[in-house]
Amino acid sequence: MKETAPEAAINSNEDWKKNIEATKDVSEATTADLEWADAIVFGTPTRYGGAASQLRAFIDTTGGLWAKGALIDKIGSSFSSAATAHSGHENTILSFNSVFYHWGMIIVSPGYNDPIQFQMGNPYGVSHTLGNGTIPPDKTALAAARFQGKRVAEITN
Amino acid sequence: MKETAPEAAINSNEDWKKNIEATKDVSEATTADLEWADAIVFGTPTRYGGAASQLRAFIDTTGGLWAKGALIDKIGSSFSSAATAHSGHENTILSFNSVFYHWGMIIVSPGYNDPIQFQMGNPYGVSHTLGNGTIPPDKTALAAARFQGKRVAEITN
Amino acid sequence: MKETAPEAAINSNEDWKKNIEATKDVSEATTADLEWADAIVFGTPTRYGGAASQLRAFIDTTGGLWAKGALIDKIGSSFSSAATAHSGHENTILSFNSVFYHWGMIIVSPGYNDPIQFQMGNPYGVSHTLGNGTIPPDKTALAAARFQGKRVAEITN
Amino acid sequence: MKETAPEAAINSNEDWKKNIEATKDVSEATTADLEWADAIVFGTPTRYGGAASQLRAFIDTTGGLWAKGALIDKIGSSFSSAATAHSGHENTILSFNSVFYHWGMIIVSPGYNDPIQFQMGNPYGVSHTLGNGTIPPDKTALAAARFQGKRVAEITN
Repeated sequence: MKETAPEAAINSNEDWKKNIEATKDVSEATTADLEWADAIVFGTPTRYGGAASQLRAFIDTTGGLWAKGALIDKIGSSFSSAATAHSGHENTILSFNSVFYHWGMIIVSPGYNDPIQFQMGNPYGVSHTLGNGTIPPDKTALAAARFQGKRVAEITN
Repeated sequence: MKETAPEAAINSNEDWKKNIEATKDVSEATTADLEWADAIVFGTPTRYGGAASQLRAFIDTTGGLWAKGALIDKIGSSFSSAATAHSGHENTILSFNSVFYHWGMIIVSPGYNDPIQFQMGNPYGVSHTLGNGTIPPDKTALAAARFQGKRVAEITN
Repeated sequence: MKETAPEAAINSNEDWKKNIEATKDVSEATTADLEWADAIVFGTPTRYGGAASQLRAFIDTTGGLWAKGALIDKIGSSFSSAATAHSGHENTILSFNSVFYHWGMIIVSPGYNDPIQFQMGNPYGVSHTLGNGTIPPDKTALAAARFQGKRVAEITN
Repeated sequence: MKETAPEAAINSNEDWKKNIEATKDVSEATTADLEWADAIVFGTPTRYGGAASQLRAFIDTTGGLWAKGALIDKIGSSFSSAATAHSGHENTILSFNSVFYHWGMIIVSPGYNDPIQFQMGNPYGVSHTLGNGTIPPDKTALAAARFQGKRVAEITN
């Protein structure tokens, strides 16, 4: 979705600038995508235990869809990341998922429905501890993400 | 489920005693019921924003079912009540529903998927403000409860 | 704080436009205000059970303050509003308050520490049901807001 | 507090039986203890993201204290443990702490107010990943617990 942070904030952070440049050709999600999709999966880094404001800003443009019930009965699922262990991994997903309740959707989480979940740990959705961007998603996180994606696809069918 | 409160507490409250007497022939839910059911709907009064300990005690006996994955992919939904408005209606349902995440279930809530929900208000599950037992569930609460039950049944099918 | 919504969204809503005009001389909160304040009270309408993205965007600019521990031991409290009963009144405050945990602050809520709270109902913070802007805060909401403010001031002292 | 689990459940688990035996001379907390204490710190293993029913049963006996406002303005804080990472560490503390809101107490958490917190990770309260009882609290968990205790004591003063 759209980057809503002030340019000065972005420019003060080399990694952020590089990421904006690297992803400039990735097409942005729009509310129209929410309408045709049968399943919606959101991912966000934690911001003090909640979702990033860029994601919340996108969510706040969905009033029209909500009003006409366009999101009812779709499947919803979420994943997150945080700098350290237990610093918003659970809270970000659980608090964000209340959006799905309001939209009348059906919530699907990974639970402990696959052995990989006992390694990754988080039953609410995949989450990864990434230092401050120093630890890329590891084998466990990637395998758990594949499981969550597969599970969402299967339930949606 | 089983009453776990101390007998002295029960006896100090006329309404509680009467209710125990009135419901003595209602068969108690067991963990075996969780196993055959395709959908599981829990209701609880709020206790400081969480579920009643009687319900939590029942939940705490499900370790065996969880360990063998017996609850995976079932449909879960909850409802609640509280003495005053906004005094745990939302919080009780949302915090209790984390049990469903751990069990690997699928969460279905009423959302605003029916006009009755705009009157009852709570998208997470039906809830009713009951004074301290002085206000029985009204027309709105009953209609919303019927809607939530119907929705759970339909999604389960 | 700063309005971050797209101009097209604002212009599509007469009340929103009027409010922007009416509040154009109110000075915006800045992160510098967070630094000198001994107590911080946030209010937000619910957006699907979470805070408005405008507030989250402001929160997301506080990384510098957090990194130097500038918010530690301050008093935090929140209030909210929603269109209907039980439609995010509790959830918005509880999920938003996790910001205070991350900032190392001390959380003060109204509880049932005053008779007005049994009328207003919400122990987590004042909240008001406002239709869709059709119901201005009533006597109960205003009295509860005064109580919450007074309580925050007293504990801060 | 009082063990409320059925004897059959306890007897089916050697570690549980040993713990009952080992702690039989530890005096149980009573609601009277809540009344004289200036600060109240609760710890609980996670049970599917919520507190153990033994603790909830104790909480459910405090109606008398709550009704007379005996817990108002006390300091509250919580800690937890779970079998795996992100499997209720945050959720258990956050959902349990809503009890403090209802009691009109003041919530104090460790935040990131000490360097140990960046190692332990959980800003809501200390938590420890204990396998299934196979991993005793390590140096980090113990140091973080000491910090949380010290912080609660200082704020209480």
